[in-house]
Amino acid sequence: MTNFSMAANHSIRPVKEDVIFGMSLKAEEAIKRDGFKNIINSTIGALLDDEGKLVTFHSVFEVLKGLSDQQIAAYAPLSGMPEYIKCAIEATFMDCRPEGFIDGVATPGGSGAIRHAIWNYTDAGDKILTSNWFWEPYQTMASEHMRKIATYELYDENMDFNLKSFETSLSELLSEQKRALILLNTPAHNPTGYSLSSSEWLRLREVLVKLSKDENNKIVLFIDVAYLDFCEDEEREFFKILGGLPKNVLILVSFSMSKGYTFYGLRSGALIGVSSEEKVIKEFKEVCAHSNRGVWSNGTRAAMETLIEIYRNETVKEKVMAERKIHKEILKQRAEAFIDSASKVGLDLCPYKGGFFISIPHDDSIKIAEKLVEKNVFVVPLEKGLRFAVCAVSIDKCKTAPLLIKEMMDSLK
Amino acid sequence: MTNFSMAANHSIRPVKEDVIFGMSLKAEEAIKRDGFKNIINSTIGALLDDEGKLVTFHSVFEVLKGLSDQQIAAYAPLSGMPEYIKCAIEATFMDCRPEGFIDGVATPGGSGAIRHAIWNYTDAGDKILTSNWFWEPYQTMASEHMRKIATYELYDENMDFNLKSFETSLSELLSEQKRALILLNTPAHNPTGYSLSSSEWLRLREVLVKLSKDENNKIVLFIDVAYLDFCEDEEREFFKILGGLPKNVLILVSFSMSKGYTFYGLRSGALIGVSSEEKVIKEFKEVCAHSNRGVWSNGTRAAMETLIEIYRNETVKEKVMAERKIHKEILKQRAEAFIDSASKVGLDLCPYKGGFFISIPHDDSIKIAEKLVEKNVFVVPLEKGLRFAVCAVSIDKCKTAPLLIKEMMDSLK
Repeated sequence: MTNFSMAANHSIRPVKEDVIFGMSLKAEEAIKRDGFKNIINSTIGALLDDEGKLVTFHSVFEVLKGLSDQQIAAYAPLSGMPEYIKCAIEATFMDCRPEGFIDGVATPGGSGAIRHAIWNYTDAGDKILTSNWFWEPYQTMASEHMRKIATYELYDENMDFNLKSFETSLSELLSEQKRALILLNTPAHNPTGYSLSSSEWLRLREVLVKLSKDENNKIVLFIDVAYLDFCEDEEREFFKILGGLPKNVLILVSFSMSKGYTFYGLRSGALIGVSSEEKVIKEFKEVCAHSNRGVWSNGTRAAMETLIEIYRNETVKEKVMAERKIHKEILKQRAEAFIDSASKVGLDLCPYKGGFFISIPHDDSIKIAEKLVEKNVFVVPLEKGLRFAVCAVSIDKCKTAPLLIKEMMDSLK
Repeated sequence: MTNFSMAANHSIRPVKEDVIFGMSLKAEEAIKRDGFKNIINSTIGALLDDEGKLVTFHSVFEVLKGLSDQQIAAYAPLSGMPEYIKCAIEATFMDCRPEGFIDGVATPGGSGAIRHAIWNYTDAGDKILTSNWFWEPYQTMASEHMRKIATYELYDENMDFNLKSFETSLSELLSEQKRALILLNTPAHNPTGYSLSSSEWLRLREVLVKLSKDENNKIVLFIDVAYLDFCEDEEREFFKILGGLPKNVLILVSFSMSKGYTFYGLRSGALIGVSSEEKVIKEFKEVCAHSNRGVWSNGTRAAMETLIEIYRNETVKEKVMAERKIHKEILKQRAEAFIDSASKVGLDLCPYKGGFFISIPHDDSIKIAEKLVEKNVFVVPLEKGLRFAVCAVSIDKCKTAPLLIKEMMDSLK
């Protein structure tokens, strides 16, 4: 009986403790005990105001609350409302739309988009390539679908993007599998805040072109842009160079309303495909439409209707952009405060270009994180360091945190 | 180039025309051309009023619209808000809760629940058992996950539940696979409206007990109760006999807010597990929580908060139940009108016990459906007959439709 199990073998696996959730719980207990102003809770991956309250964009919720009951109640079409897909593509690329054939399907947030990419563009047992600093749920999504994660080094010796490691890993994977799905989280990488520069993008593109010369290779580059809307608009420039790639290079981009519209809980995103080959995009749309029907049916219509309304009305759209800009600015100030302080106290950080998180490399992150709890500082320990969510912490606390972290690291040396 | 493809082999399949969608489009065109009152559109699987407008429960939307922006914006926990799961279990079983260990995870509607059952309780290549009249998306969900559908005969010679065919098919499947997932859509089966009677349930239970005597067999009975809330409360009685089953029989039940709360487009449901064995339910919760994180992350919080509010406030709950009762009554009257007329004109129907659909057995349903378009009658052709959505058609039209269908069938004999 000890080993009796009803689940299929592939679903039986050791249950991992949810580190982020565990640390959040500890922070909540500390808030109750010592008061919010006396603790630094950097575990939450959402934009919070200085009092720790979730930021919601008034301009977006005004649109949502103005929808009719019917607009909310009705099923959306399986692939998403066509106008929503159009808006999602526009919202993603803005004026940096790559040349080529482009289409999309609605998904529950960016996670659903990743699921479709993994399922439809890799085979059981395949390895999926991402950088050695990566968002932990990639692992869960891979393992759920009987895939594995392989990694390249994110940084070279100058803490720039390690293109050499990227190329070697991709090349190895292609020799092995003849197909490779790359999960590239940029700009504003979670957890480090790294963004590929224009020149890094150009060189990465060259690698893709080079490795696609072998026509048997199939390369699918999935660009996870979850934090794009909190970057400067110029950060979209790289999209332009994604056109005109060989037919055996497919570009996938995830759109999400979670962060950019503070619609986290409404579960609305899209998977967007870009290819120089019309048939590749037709196939993309078909397989993902099948996946929608076969996994969760259709998406949250209220969120789709909201995006459509925003994009139909220039005034509303401008209000949303203006409101987002305010919070983008706050986020920037928090990050700058953290980085300045870190620099002053000599705390080494991963190079941060934007987004919700800053990472601090460390070999024994769990120990540091646990000891920091005693100081009422709550950070998330990752395999390669600590993650500090500047999105969730006030400027003042962003200023004081680096010293506390540095002192703890020094004391445990 | 003709066969060039970027998708993985398992995702490449012939694209099937969406019959229901195609027929709906034709109906919409006809409405524009000839006016709503002159057409009978029985293709829509949602409750519509007599003017063809989607019914939304005011009492439910009042709760939704009263939620704070934060309640809507925040991520829900991965497995769903614990209180939501509690409410979903209560809403499903009411006072017919089976004995045993029970838990659940939030899913996007009933579809998401089916996905988790298929993925976690069958292996690649497995056959999944359902009746030969079945909801077409079962096929899509099975094929998406590299599973197949096997069927037993729904009816015996008296048009009662064919328990013998059920037992034979299940027994064969168990010999072959040692595990079997059964998708049993009752009460108010889609597309026929069939519901297993109490005595049929008792005998089905005996079959499960008998076939589970071989301890190597694992039987997972998934009860798809999508239309439960439009049945009489007594239709929940069968839940009581699902307790006390052997440990190698797992009961799964899908909860959905789509029909019972007119929250179709908000994508909120749950997969509920019932077992006499605590460890089986613990495992169920763990594998499904992993699946949530690995597929779509978390669920629509606004819907969860709404259900919680309804169940916290007895007055609100009573208002929702009262409003639902009105529409349940309308649905009943429509079905009765259709059945009466069918009987008068000699149109044979599948035995209807409740729900949104009535089916008319026919060997050449596509031809009949296509010819009926010329008469401005829009029905969905299925493999084994025509599906008429009484949920979407007024009493008057339900009265006139059977004659039109019968005449068409006779004229094409």
